[in-house]
Amino acid sequence: MANNQDKFKQVIAHAKEYGYIFSSSEIYDGLSAVYDYGQNGAELKKNIKEYWWRSMVQLHEEIVGLDAAILMHPKTWKASGHVDAFNDPLIDNKDSKKRYRADVLIEDYCEKLEQKAQKEITKAKKRFGDDFDETQFVATHPRVVKYRAQQKEILQRMAKSLEAENLVDVKNLIEELEIACPESGSRNWTEVKQFNLMFGTKLGASADSASDLYLRPETAQGIFVNFANVLKTGRMKIPFGIAQIGKAFRNEIVARQFIFRQREFEQMEMQYFVRPGDELKWFEYWKEQRQKWHRSLGLGEENYRFHDHEKLAHYANAATDIEFNFPFGFKELEGIHSRTDFDLKAHEKMSGKKLQFFDPELNKNYVPFVIETSIGLDRMFLAVFATALQDEELADGSSRTVLKIPSILAPVKAAVFPLLKRDGLPEIAHEIVDQLKWDFNVAYDEKDAVGRRYRRQDAAGTPFCITVDHETKEDGCVTIRHRDSMEQKRVKIEELNSIIAKEVSFKNWMG
Amino acid sequence: MANNQDKFKQVIAHAKEYGYIFSSSEIYDGLSAVYDYGQNGAELKKNIKEYWWRSMVQLHEEIVGLDAAILMHPKTWKASGHVDAFNDPLIDNKDSKKRYRADVLIEDYCEKLEQKAQKEITKAKKRFGDDFDETQFVATHPRVVKYRAQQKEILQRMAKSLEAENLVDVKNLIEELEIACPESGSRNWTEVKQFNLMFGTKLGASADSASDLYLRPETAQGIFVNFANVLKTGRMKIPFGIAQIGKAFRNEIVARQFIFRQREFEQMEMQYFVRPGDELKWFEYWKEQRQKWHRSLGLGEENYRFHDHEKLAHYANAATDIEFNFPFGFKELEGIHSRTDFDLKAHEKMSGKKLQFFDPELNKNYVPFVIETSIGLDRMFLAVFATALQDEELADGSSRTVLKIPSILAPVKAAVFPLLKRDGLPEIAHEIVDQLKWDFNVAYDEKDAVGRRYRRQDAAGTPFCITVDHETKEDGCVTIRHRDSMEQKRVKIEELNSIIAKEVSFKNWMG
Repeated sequence: MANNQDKFKQVIAHAKEYGYIFSSSEIYDGLSAVYDYGQNGAELKKNIKEYWWRSMVQLHEEIVGLDAAILMHPKTWKASGHVDAFNDPLIDNKDSKKRYRADVLIEDYCEKLEQKAQKEITKAKKRFGDDFDETQFVATHPRVVKYRAQQKEILQRMAKSLEAENLVDVKNLIEELEIACPESGSRNWTEVKQFNLMFGTKLGASADSASDLYLRPETAQGIFVNFANVLKTGRMKIPFGIAQIGKAFRNEIVARQFIFRQREFEQMEMQYFVRPGDELKWFEYWKEQRQKWHRSLGLGEENYRFHDHEKLAHYANAATDIEFNFPFGFKELEGIHSRTDFDLKAHEKMSGKKLQFFDPELNKNYVPFVIETSIGLDRMFLAVFATALQDEELADGSSRTVLKIPSILAPVKAAVFPLLKRDGLPEIAHEIVDQLKWDFNVAYDEKDAVGRRYRRQDAAGTPFCITVDHETKEDGCVTIRHRDSMEQKRVKIEELNSIIAKEVSFKNWMG
Repeated sequence: MANNQDKFKQVIAHAKEYGYIFSSSEIYDGLSAVYDYGQNGAELKKNIKEYWWRSMVQLHEEIVGLDAAILMHPKTWKASGHVDAFNDPLIDNKDSKKRYRADVLIEDYCEKLEQKAQKEITKAKKRFGDDFDETQFVATHPRVVKYRAQQKEILQRMAKSLEAENLVDVKNLIEELEIACPESGSRNWTEVKQFNLMFGTKLGASADSASDLYLRPETAQGIFVNFANVLKTGRMKIPFGIAQIGKAFRNEIVARQFIFRQREFEQMEMQYFVRPGDELKWFEYWKEQRQKWHRSLGLGEENYRFHDHEKLAHYANAATDIEFNFPFGFKELEGIHSRTDFDLKAHEKMSGKKLQFFDPELNKNYVPFVIETSIGLDRMFLAVFATALQDEELADGSSRTVLKIPSILAPVKAAVFPLLKRDGLPEIAHEIVDQLKWDFNVAYDEKDAVGRRYRRQDAAGTPFCITVDHETKEDGCVTIRHRDSMEQKRVKIEELNSIIAKEVSFKNWMG
């Protein structure tokens, strides 16, 4: 646990130090839960998008793209249910004037109980050494059993009250547990109220004439409202998909875990429209496809977990989360949902327009069912980055920090070094940059000893380093070193483009 | 003029019919001045972005990317001047309750005077035929001279009043000209008031505890506030650039001209940081570079115009607009500005942080000067699309509508057809799709006669059509047809990838 927290801190620090992620508006002390992607982060994010887009749109004949605006007609959010039901239960402390999510206060209380349990376990482990049987200890130790039972009871009661929208009982629970405000220490709480998570804004000039808009809280609805236009102009036949990458916004009250839960974030979503009755077959197909995509990047099978929902949202008849082992534990990375015809029907009703497909085989019209795959781009970024960041002990007893980002996603594919800053070596290195830059994002670096430059590029995630030395002038060869194996080879300058192209070939990665 | 209006209507209709641009939330009757990019539009937009990004970031060793959030700390907009000075002068009609931009009402009045002048010119042209000397007529005809002089006087007075923030005189002018509300016909106007164009929103839970935020009205400030982070973590040396593509929002009161002026739009901006005193040299350099970029796409030299600003914004010491010949006339497509050290100094002052570069050659710290290149992505999209859309008379007397989008930007690079829907031809066509799809976005089409399929792909902008026929089974060859020349060649299936790759090679286009 402590180890994971250290790892998480290292991830955040490294992301800043190497130009991946900065706090938004940092010179003004940052904007909470909003982040900017730096020079390397912008490239990694772009490459993840491209890898997803090519896999979804380019490889699938029957999937097309879409790029809908963030601002949408407000009726969209009435139809989708977001105006009425996209809420968090909030509570204010009257002394500190601070606002909290009621459910998070209660979860934090349970987390403290769990910490107490963990403390007992650690203590016992130390005492009994190799003889320690954790399973038996946890099942029988009176305090541990009590802490665990309390947690379970509290969380069940909270879930039940929230589901029944019994906010009075949520407040009662906070009072019974004697939860105090972390800031003021007081137990002087307001009632619990539902708060809508959508960011509002106004279109038009003045308060009275303007219309209320929302920043979209998800990209999916942009696909649903464009369903009929794409169907018709793209001459689509069922089954077909519409894929989209774009920003969404949620006014989270408690936003933590770095870029995992941001107020402004980016989604990569695909809605697959199928014949009613076929949806579970396609649900399985997309579970398989998306797993294949994740596997192709080699982040480690052990870092993934698949979690089928037992309790389903009102619009779904099947749902799976793909969870990833983030530095703070397994959390949702992607969701695959069988959304039925809920959304299209809701928009039919609200708009009075038909959102149907004429199926020539069945000779009838119907509202298609939808399978959705929805992955958080920022979460995927964090998964790639955190897994890639490794401290390695080397054979010679030294150590290095290396960012083993899959080479197809790496921001810079190769760095070109002159061994020395003289004797015409920089000129040759620049020529190599000029040869490579038409195909790849490459860098030039001439500062410090070559060993230090290697370490710097390792830490920045650059798969190849190419060094020009005095022999280059005679034999037209350079030394190419691979980040992960640290192996060095001497190759002809003309071969460089094809060596790198092979390493970052989409077909080699995804094929 | 009438011809241009027809062309503009054709552009809008074609953009919808071929899945390029839809009105946002169209099933809810659209959201004014916001548009969604359809299945082909999403790809064209993505390809324009990529062409810009590769030209700016990948080809320039000293330029790096950035991807800053839309939500920024509100002090950013105080420092940049947007809170205080990003306004439009608005006036309400008390009867219709409609709100107008005061300057647009006055400009529309002048436009009507110009129409009267044009009418006289057209009438005279008809009367005098070949003998008509327009220059002399315009200089001497009493009514034309009067209409033109009136326009000039009105626009000069308006500009002077707006600059002096004398809104009372703007109102007086509207009254003196007896301008009526286009809707109610009444002249019952309110005072003229300044209205800020930034969209506001609130971060946090309740009205009293929330902070006021804005949706960024330009992407540039995201670069300035990250200047120090990029400088340090990217180990940059002056001169260097930071490039960014992203959404910006302006609450325009009068938004017209399709995607040319939207409330939600996308910018491609690059800020180039230089030593003070060198800025005009780099300003010339970037004028040159950006012209080269535009020329590389072959949209026609005659469609570009370069307009040096005589009157400069308060932060600039040189500025040029690259104007493009849109269906509604020459309008700004890109701006190149020498912004001095205005922005960085303003952020230094507001934040109390140093935004300086230590120049080892001069052995001193300074706030760099900035050259900015800023192009509207949606405007570039419109420039490409409108220029590409052509009605052609063919040698055989027939005609076709063709969308000659530069092939490197085309949404779909090739469409593969089986000549017939039987005899194993569809299977071979699908195999070709499978061979090409790893490298390119391709489509499969088997419906209707091949001639019709050619026309459909021409109108959709697809550079290549590939037809599989009965001989293919024997000779392993297919017919490849080029959209622009309509020439057909028989080639081996194995050669297809390299033929297309050569046509859409970045180096061939930009090199």
